[in-house]
Amino acid sequence: MSGLLRLRAATTPAMLAVFDDAATITLALAFEAELAKAQAAQGLISGAAAAAIVRACERAALDPVVLAEEAALAGTLAIPLVRHLRTLLDRDAAAVLHKGTTSQDLADTVLMGQVKRAAALLDADLDRIAAALAGLARRHVETPAIGRTLLQDAQPIGFGLRIAHWHAGIAGAARRLRAEVEANVRLQFGGAAGTRAGLDGKGAAVAQHLAAALGLAAAAPWQAERSGVAALAAALGIVIGTLGKMARDVALLAQNSVGEAREPAVPGRGGSSAMPHKRNPTGCQVALSAALRAPGLVAGILAGLPAEEERGLGGWQAEGPALAEMFMLAAGSADAMLPVAEALEIDEAAIARNLAAAAIGTDIGESAAIVATLLAPAEEG
Amino acid sequence: MSGLLRLRAATTPAMLAVFDDAATITLALAFEAELAKAQAAQGLISGAAAAAIVRACERAALDPVVLAEEAALAGTLAIPLVRHLRTLLDRDAAAVLHKGTTSQDLADTVLMGQVKRAAALLDADLDRIAAALAGLARRHVETPAIGRTLLQDAQPIGFGLRIAHWHAGIAGAARRLRAEVEANVRLQFGGAAGTRAGLDGKGAAVAQHLAAALGLAAAAPWQAERSGVAALAAALGIVIGTLGKMARDVALLAQNSVGEAREPAVPGRGGSSAMPHKRNPTGCQVALSAALRAPGLVAGILAGLPAEEERGLGGWQAEGPALAEMFMLAAGSADAMLPVAEALEIDEAAIARNLAAAAIGTDIGESAAIVATLLAPAEEG
Amino acid sequence: MSGLLRLRAATTPAMLAVFDDAATITLALAFEAELAKAQAAQGLISGAAAAAIVRACERAALDPVVLAEEAALAGTLAIPLVRHLRTLLDRDAAAVLHKGTTSQDLADTVLMGQVKRAAALLDADLDRIAAALAGLARRHVETPAIGRTLLQDAQPIGFGLRIAHWHAGIAGAARRLRAEVEANVRLQFGGAAGTRAGLDGKGAAVAQHLAAALGLAAAAPWQAERSGVAALAAALGIVIGTLGKMARDVALLAQNSVGEAREPAVPGRGGSSAMPHKRNPTGCQVALSAALRAPGLVAGILAGLPAEEERGLGGWQAEGPALAEMFMLAAGSADAMLPVAEALEIDEAAIARNLAAAAIGTDIGESAAIVATLLAPAEEG
Amino acid sequence: MSGLLRLRAATTPAMLAVFDDAATITLALAFEAELAKAQAAQGLISGAAAAAIVRACERAALDPVVLAEEAALAGTLAIPLVRHLRTLLDRDAAAVLHKGTTSQDLADTVLMGQVKRAAALLDADLDRIAAALAGLARRHVETPAIGRTLLQDAQPIGFGLRIAHWHAGIAGAARRLRAEVEANVRLQFGGAAGTRAGLDGKGAAVAQHLAAALGLAAAAPWQAERSGVAALAAALGIVIGTLGKMARDVALLAQNSVGEAREPAVPGRGGSSAMPHKRNPTGCQVALSAALRAPGLVAGILAGLPAEEERGLGGWQAEGPALAEMFMLAAGSADAMLPVAEALEIDEAAIARNLAAAAIGTDIGESAAIVATLLAPAEEG
Repeated sequence: MSGLLRLRAATTPAMLAVFDDAATITLALAFEAELAKAQAAQGLISGAAAAAIVRACERAALDPVVLAEEAALAGTLAIPLVRHLRTLLDRDAAAVLHKGTTSQDLADTVLMGQVKRAAALLDADLDRIAAALAGLARRHVETPAIGRTLLQDAQPIGFGLRIAHWHAGIAGAARRLRAEVEANVRLQFGGAAGTRAGLDGKGAAVAQHLAAALGLAAAAPWQAERSGVAALAAALGIVIGTLGKMARDVALLAQNSVGEAREPAVPGRGGSSAMPHKRNPTGCQVALSAALRAPGLVAGILAGLPAEEERGLGGWQAEGPALAEMFMLAAGSADAMLPVAEALEIDEAAIARNLAAAAIGTDIGESAAIVATLLAPAEEG
Repeated sequence: MSGLLRLRAATTPAMLAVFDDAATITLALAFEAELAKAQAAQGLISGAAAAAIVRACERAALDPVVLAEEAALAGTLAIPLVRHLRTLLDRDAAAVLHKGTTSQDLADTVLMGQVKRAAALLDADLDRIAAALAGLARRHVETPAIGRTLLQDAQPIGFGLRIAHWHAGIAGAARRLRAEVEANVRLQFGGAAGTRAGLDGKGAAVAQHLAAALGLAAAAPWQAERSGVAALAAALGIVIGTLGKMARDVALLAQNSVGEAREPAVPGRGGSSAMPHKRNPTGCQVALSAALRAPGLVAGILAGLPAEEERGLGGWQAEGPALAEMFMLAAGSADAMLPVAEALEIDEAAIARNLAAAAIGTDIGESAAIVATLLAPAEEG
Repeated sequence: MSGLLRLRAATTPAMLAVFDDAATITLALAFEAELAKAQAAQGLISGAAAAAIVRACERAALDPVVLAEEAALAGTLAIPLVRHLRTLLDRDAAAVLHKGTTSQDLADTVLMGQVKRAAALLDADLDRIAAALAGLARRHVETPAIGRTLLQDAQPIGFGLRIAHWHAGIAGAARRLRAEVEANVRLQFGGAAGTRAGLDGKGAAVAQHLAAALGLAAAAPWQAERSGVAALAAALGIVIGTLGKMARDVALLAQNSVGEAREPAVPGRGGSSAMPHKRNPTGCQVALSAALRAPGLVAGILAGLPAEEERGLGGWQAEGPALAEMFMLAAGSADAMLPVAEALEIDEAAIARNLAAAAIGTDIGESAAIVATLLAPAEEG
Repeated sequence: MSGLLRLRAATTPAMLAVFDDAATITLALAFEAELAKAQAAQGLISGAAAAAIVRACERAALDPVVLAEEAALAGTLAIPLVRHLRTLLDRDAAAVLHKGTTSQDLADTVLMGQVKRAAALLDADLDRIAAALAGLARRHVETPAIGRTLLQDAQPIGFGLRIAHWHAGIAGAARRLRAEVEANVRLQFGGAAGTRAGLDGKGAAVAQHLAAALGLAAAAPWQAERSGVAALAAALGIVIGTLGKMARDVALLAQNSVGEAREPAVPGRGGSSAMPHKRNPTGCQVALSAALRAPGLVAGILAGLPAEEERGLGGWQAEGPALAEMFMLAAGSADAMLPVAEALEIDEAAIARNLAAAAIGTDIGESAAIVATLLAPAEEG
């Protein structure tokens, strides 16, 4: 049923797990359980009801296949989820389950929980890639190589200068993503129309409690102000694009007639079903494929920004799948380029040969100083 | 693992099944089996080898989870699939399995098999929607209603005129999709570099045989000329957009202060987890969400057209998932709008009330004649 | 004021002229003049009034700069245009000017007139490119060359096979564009709410007359059913993508370490401001730049399909600039690739050298037969 | 020639001027003049040569029409610009004009100069909009109104809460844009291959001097690391989307059957060429049209991130026009929504009537507190 073959080709098992049904259900149940606890803490529901809700969330055995059918019919996950939970509750607890909240509160908060986990996973890989590239750039900073512009031989560069640009792009994109995660991974809690009505004026306090329990930032409701999601998507798109830049260059360098660098040999990777001798740039393929898919996903999320009034029709529902897909693509791309960054095979003889063929000398100008600037996360000076 | 909650919210079980792992594996095995038979028929391999390959394809019990891992490592499905099949074959048959072909031949042919099935599924729903809308347009062609332009009351129209435009858009988009399916759902069979080398000049004959057996059109290899896939994607994008047009209008008509039409009541559908009394336009939500997601997917496929030389790096690998997603979105959208088309609740009193409020008369001009033109698939005359 | 430096870098003077202010105003005036004549022919307005309107349209000296300001304020070109014309008319003629029509009728009809001219211009260049490539493919069909997949040496191909794929992509895309132009370049004439009210039942007859006079197909109004525009955009996007495919390959072949082909030398073209000796693939640059810009433009037009009711708010207003830009990009790309197709410099010695270096033989399989198939606009057989 | 009718419909004269030919040429000449001065200051060229270059830049009378033709042929503006300047110089000065730099240095630096000016213009309008909306939100914070979700009546809100969300979206997007401008509006100065070769090791010092003179940040060359441009584009896309959100809501509120708010009356604005009585939401039309066009432009820029090696082929050439278009769309959208923000006509009677019709009480929950949070640029607490 799952389309795993299609998904796994572009991402990692760990990132698939962040967005799989089990994770979604776990986070959804956590939302209901923590909401009940927060409301009990504020005296909005009884401690007994909260305890019952927490227990129901713990022992609810929700079948994703059934739930997916029910949610598709209802138009939202919250409706069948809450209905199932109510069957595990007495009348009093059932009456206060999901109190003061609504489907989108749950959906957005679950998504934010997944974004938080996904971003942490991705960030770790991006850090390792950046570190590896920094080392590589330093190591080859003085190696004269032909620089190419518009796909034509141009002037010599330090070979490490090209790598330092990969580093700068990826490290900068990772910083932007971290900043957007910091700013926008927030609780959604507003209720039916985003006013926190029906909570005796304690909505903000409940939100604080709930956010803390779920490890998210507290915030005013944002159910129809989606620029935070758009900013996350854009930051991911830039991450994927900078990984794609590295992949483009590695693939060009790996051409047989260039031969200056290639992906490390990995058993079972990069073969051809027709030509067993061939070594394909499979990591680059994954990263470049992601770089082709991501821009349109960003565009789709941006197109949904003009959401209708207090809760849009169609826009925010389009975001979750697109954002999940972007994290998956980013993770797949980073996972593909990490071993390339850490073990890129560089052929110094080929570099020297190609430079000599260009017959343009070996003056690499200020390559070393520029590399130093690019590797420092500070301004040139 | 599957992300079913995310996928199912936007599509149908039937369309999920077209693109699921089982279908992919079945089509991949059919490719290898029919290829062997075609090659045996041309005397390129022995009948015994072909029979052994067919048997192996029949009894191969491939675990999608394992296969997905192996394919992700290899960078292509064909490599582990062929390796597994070889374990079921003697040396002679193993030597001729996958003869003269390559990973992309298999991947593209599988995709085309899925496209064929998906398009047929979708077409049936689009036909039903178009037929229902034609009936509805005729029924309400003479009902004077306020026409709205730029979201402002403008002049009277026949209420059926608006519906006839929905019909014209959807029916026209369905025709375009059918034409592109007819033109572009083709076998891919070119071998390592698209030359059909190693087949004793019998490549074209093998292709003819193979295409017929798989129910696809024969064609010259097209492994790096991807305009056919782009045209399919664009046609799907237009289908989704025309369904979105209908959804936009229904949602606007269903506003409480308008009340001229609304989605039919379906038990369990369109509720609110916060407001049980509310009836949300859930079908429109699904269709409008699809209409936001589709354009970027089309863009991603178009962006891959400049594929490198004989087989691109990243571009065609990005197409399969995007095309699958577009069919899923189209199916979900059609499935959501079909009951709306077939049982739209129209409130004639509200229509009359809103028209009267506009105080602009009841002259619906040539609405009836225009409806007749729009419902006829012919030119105006 | 004009941004000509930006525009001209990506397109041709001829295509700029199709969409410039003078052309827009000429077509807008033709719409009003021919409308008056058509209405007089149907007895809806007097012959004298029609004659006066025609004369006014002939002698109206509209300043684009003034008109642009007024149109921006009004939100539509028709309002100031009609107001200016009325100053040239007596009361009777002024009263019937623009009768039964509306701003979007004018805007869409003008756009369609421009699309018709633009498509003819583009088609001529695409035809020449396709013809040149067909000749080139035939000439080099038997030249063994290394085929490259995933940017790696793969197996030999006939050098003409690669070119035949360029041909097939571009010629096929040109056919699709012609078909969509044929199907969708239509008069828009529906009046305030698309009902042709106020024309005594003679709206269809006026439309027939008007369409014929303007050289457009007659059609039912389509003011909020925009799939025709979307289909034109998609077809253009595919044209641009197939030109981009050719450009990608030429640029790769022109790399110094490959050297198999390069753009012809054109005085003043492809230089470097820093390296006078360098010869850049400037035509490819133009075509690849267009191929990056076009997909998002298509997406923008697709995103507008769910137009609101009888006339959308924002969607169709976004189409005109995007469609104009796509024609400009397509023209610029075709203009850039035409001399490349007609005078590509092919270095047979380099082709032989690279093939020999791959040490993989010279078996080009069925390259010649596949080329024949690709050059015939018929099915393989 | 200019397409002014098309451009001006979507933007402001002031923003057109930022990106027009005169501004481009002025900035290009400033680049060459300041470069000469910086190099003279570092002793790289003689003071006399620098003075001659500065004078040549001052008196160069470059015809944009001629220059556009020449630049289109050459593939870059710098080549004809430098050639024209050389005709004004003696041999010594001509020899050191454009020393150590290249076409893309000039193009990117000019673009950054335009971005700086464009961002300042835009920011001023966004600030005014945000301030006006904050005032409006405060004024109507306690006005009970029906909140609408999924285009259906939901629960009461304070009318100002909706407006506070517009404010939060626009103000947040303006902050993000400012931050990206701050981070990414940088000098480009790297020479032929981005190494600052040929400058006796004084390239960084020249860059510092040049950047300061041009009012840009100094930076390491970034000619093939385009994430800064992508980030600017994404930030603009979000600005445009948040303005679109406001426009969407105003247009919905202005529907005749809703009537809660509408754009202020502006003489000459929002009319209909067919229905003089009608008042169209023309500002919303401009903003929503921009919101449809922007996402695809962002996607196009993201798609170019994987630039080839030291200078990409096609990617960065696609950015300038797209970024200019985005600033124009953003300016047009802000200009359209500014009077709406400053003079929105709010009909309290209609608000009360619609709320009463919903029969759902008047409990606006914590609307006031949420508004306070949204208007404070700080975290909820």
